[in-house]
Amino acid sequence: MTRERLYFYDTTLRDGQQTQGVQFSTPEKMQIAATLDALGVDYIEGGWPGANPTDSEFFDAKPQMDATFTAFGMTKRAGRSAENDDVLAAVINAGTAAVCLVGKTHDFHVDKALGITLAENTDNIARSIEYLVAQGREALFDAEHFFDGYKSNPEYALEAVLAAYMAGARWVVLCDTNGGTLPHEIYAITKAVIAAGIPGDHLGIHTHNDTENAVAGSLAAVDAGARQVQGTLNGLGERCGNANLTTLIPTLLLKQPYASRFETGISQDALKDLVRASRQLDDILNRVPFRQAPYVGASAFAHKAGLHASAILKDPSTYEHIDPAVVGNARIIPMSNQAGQSNLRRRLAEAGLEVAPGDPALARILDLIKAREAEGYTYDSAQASFELLARVELGQIPQFFEVKRYKVTVERRKNKYNKMISLSEAVVVVKVDGEKKLSVSESLDEHGSDRGPVNALSTALAKDLGRYSEAIGDMHLVDFKVRITQGGTEAVTRVIIDSEDGQGRRWSTVGVSPNIVDASFEALLDAINWKLLREYHAVGAG
Amino acid sequence: MTRERLYFYDTTLRDGQQTQGVQFSTPEKMQIAATLDALGVDYIEGGWPGANPTDSEFFDAKPQMDATFTAFGMTKRAGRSAENDDVLAAVINAGTAAVCLVGKTHDFHVDKALGITLAENTDNIARSIEYLVAQGREALFDAEHFFDGYKSNPEYALEAVLAAYMAGARWVVLCDTNGGTLPHEIYAITKAVIAAGIPGDHLGIHTHNDTENAVAGSLAAVDAGARQVQGTLNGLGERCGNANLTTLIPTLLLKQPYASRFETGISQDALKDLVRASRQLDDILNRVPFRQAPYVGASAFAHKAGLHASAILKDPSTYEHIDPAVVGNARIIPMSNQAGQSNLRRRLAEAGLEVAPGDPALARILDLIKAREAEGYTYDSAQASFELLARVELGQIPQFFEVKRYKVTVERRKNKYNKMISLSEAVVVVKVDGEKKLSVSESLDEHGSDRGPVNALSTALAKDLGRYSEAIGDMHLVDFKVRITQGGTEAVTRVIIDSEDGQGRRWSTVGVSPNIVDASFEALLDAINWKLLREYHAVGAG
Repeated sequence: MTRERLYFYDTTLRDGQQTQGVQFSTPEKMQIAATLDALGVDYIEGGWPGANPTDSEFFDAKPQMDATFTAFGMTKRAGRSAENDDVLAAVINAGTAAVCLVGKTHDFHVDKALGITLAENTDNIARSIEYLVAQGREALFDAEHFFDGYKSNPEYALEAVLAAYMAGARWVVLCDTNGGTLPHEIYAITKAVIAAGIPGDHLGIHTHNDTENAVAGSLAAVDAGARQVQGTLNGLGERCGNANLTTLIPTLLLKQPYASRFETGISQDALKDLVRASRQLDDILNRVPFRQAPYVGASAFAHKAGLHASAILKDPSTYEHIDPAVVGNARIIPMSNQAGQSNLRRRLAEAGLEVAPGDPALARILDLIKAREAEGYTYDSAQASFELLARVELGQIPQFFEVKRYKVTVERRKNKYNKMISLSEAVVVVKVDGEKKLSVSESLDEHGSDRGPVNALSTALAKDLGRYSEAIGDMHLVDFKVRITQGGTEAVTRVIIDSEDGQGRRWSTVGVSPNIVDASFEALLDAINWKLLREYHAVGAG
Repeated sequence: MTRERLYFYDTTLRDGQQTQGVQFSTPEKMQIAATLDALGVDYIEGGWPGANPTDSEFFDAKPQMDATFTAFGMTKRAGRSAENDDVLAAVINAGTAAVCLVGKTHDFHVDKALGITLAENTDNIARSIEYLVAQGREALFDAEHFFDGYKSNPEYALEAVLAAYMAGARWVVLCDTNGGTLPHEIYAITKAVIAAGIPGDHLGIHTHNDTENAVAGSLAAVDAGARQVQGTLNGLGERCGNANLTTLIPTLLLKQPYASRFETGISQDALKDLVRASRQLDDILNRVPFRQAPYVGASAFAHKAGLHASAILKDPSTYEHIDPAVVGNARIIPMSNQAGQSNLRRRLAEAGLEVAPGDPALARILDLIKAREAEGYTYDSAQASFELLARVELGQIPQFFEVKRYKVTVERRKNKYNKMISLSEAVVVVKVDGEKKLSVSESLDEHGSDRGPVNALSTALAKDLGRYSEAIGDMHLVDFKVRITQGGTEAVTRVIIDSEDGQGRRWSTVGVSPNIVDASFEALLDAINWKLLREYHAVGAG
């Protein structure tokens, strides 16, 4: 049996960026696009060239990808030709293989928001799409508010999308812009569009999660015949978010009738990186990953002790709808297992630590990690801290120095010019090679402004570590992330520090404490110890 | 036209408690039950009497409610009579009006988990339900793994649920225990059950969110004819959670065809407390409320500047699927450097600030926001700081108090037991009503552990603000986010603080500085000033 081709269209970088508080930098966009491309989505929408400097910069950077790189814009305005529309020109000039233009299909919006006639609007759509095609671009038409438009004036809504299709649009994307349309309506209206003459393999679906039905609405459109699904990683997006591709991809690849019916650009092998892709986006956004996220959440396959857990031990399929490994996730049950140990050995090997299978240290390290994670630590990204913890347990770490105590002060007051200023000062007492050393540092940068207590501590600590001082001279802090998280029953602060050195190494360490200065200091100490290991013990890259 | 009755069944206290890390105390259960009862749900499932001490204690406390209080348990075991089954006896002894018993309907589980014959299992179901009815209880039967069971062996799955119905069960609840069944399957199978002889007004639906379809699956069952919907507040529950009543309730009350077809126990007036009910549960669980939650999330009606925001200004219905006030939520139009003057006026109006079009203050405020954003501030999420900034520019803010200086110290050293401990101490000097006040505070929580410098500063600041102290007494910090960002040419720290008060208000403020303590202090000051404005100037909800 021939499978039908189903296409995934990602809009994390455009509609996802509409989320409150989200603004990707160009390097972040590059990183996300590379992940989406490796996953195998068919289209990556990069943003709206010309709408803001960051989006333009990203298109100027011309990211390379196997996916069809797509620029977003809107149909030309009334009263000018497509050739003379400057907004459209900026989108064309981005030079992408595909262009997606949003346009109105709801009579109410044509009148209310644009203030033009329905005929003018239809003409704008047709002329804009024709222009894209004439420029040799793959043309997509995002039919804004399509479902509401269809409910208000079905004749006009159909006229508008047919105009786009007849003008040569490869895809007409039916958008539920408000997120208020329920799945059964999406099914019926998509069917009506197909009956009106746009074949399903030219129809896309774009939903929002305002009634928690974005995934179901997308599936309903696919059931009705649509063959392109739009969405974002982790369901990022304005208000309640867009359709969650992190859920839709495994559902359409693994669940029936879809699994047997469709061919997609995503391989079963790439699917194993789904959890990693989801976590990467959270890292970039400095968000706490949502534990209960379907398929990829840390709790998605966690079984609380009792009825379920004992059945799981007899046969995992009794309480799991899919095998968690298929999406790169893992089962959590109240009993440690072999899978945990082999995973751990792999991570240790990555840090240059070869440990034999069955070594009792493996169980001890697993227990320790579990206990630390319950306290709020995370070793997902803090690989350097993970390595140090394992080395302590394996007896493979020297004590380079010992911190006896520290004290840090931040003061804010008026200076002699009656201006409010702040000043941070740190005193650190360490013992190196049996010798006690006191160092003090304030925290003023070259402009005389105060860099704060963590900087003061870091400077004081680095000031005199005896014979180790030179080795850490080329180290500097490049990123500092802080999260409030759960540690046992209390809220604690988790600090993750990224450090770099003159040899281009970059490593991450973690500290946890209710006190943000303590947590930072702990991560700082790990960062220095990891660096000293590299300098004095010629261990691997980590 | 007579409306059909649709019933809501809440299992937050039982299935919701299956969530990793969740264990309600009896007073917490009391509080949640009271909220659910005030909302108007029909059934409140309190737990499993006899299964654990907390559940038993809650039933012993005999909470009073209008809803039908329901105890959960399981059908009797094989080889003994219902009268002699001790597990069943504990459930009966809880003395509730209704009892819900879970039982197997999937042949695979009967064999694998129970190790009995199908006929024995059917008999266990029938005898248990008959016994409940004989005891004068309203009987419910939770058909575990029903959908998987139906797919594996439809004859047996139907036999099992028919046995419960014929034995007198008021409700047969079809459970998708694994959460893997898709909505179209739930629809078809529910239809088949009705065709087999159980009327829809005796059928309930119980779904899980493992494919992000718990809400859609519940709606599909209702479409097929089921008239009882089970779920939890905020979708709490094992793995990816249960069906989210916080979403299902407004969808079924507000959306067509449901709104016209059904009568429920929940009034439009009670619906206005939905946001409050959702937040209360988060408070009890000490969780950060999910901003993107449908209907009740802080971002559910937040519109980012640009195309949408300008349309919203013309007519809110253009981009909103319901009026946010109906569920006790509010519209948010965040500020950003893309925003124009009309957007700004709308946002100001929402904060109770009416500014005429063309007022020169508008341009000044926009410039100020732009300049501050270049320094690293963001007003996208920090609405309260935005309001304060605008008020300063409009001359509409009183100076409640002035901070003259502060000093905070963090010390880490060994205590007399040779254990490393840390201690934070803050001194704050303020001027209130012409009077200078010095306050000092250390930062130890009830367990004697140090909560850090920001906590110490916050406590010292709140300690004596003269006549304002009382007004800020019910304020607390609920979230604290830190990012390193670019401020001009330097890296700076941006702190965003979310605060809440006893009246359910939640507001966000921002501070920026190279010094994390300074940045936190700035956000803290904004938070207090915003609260004082609300308390002393009767300004809008913001």
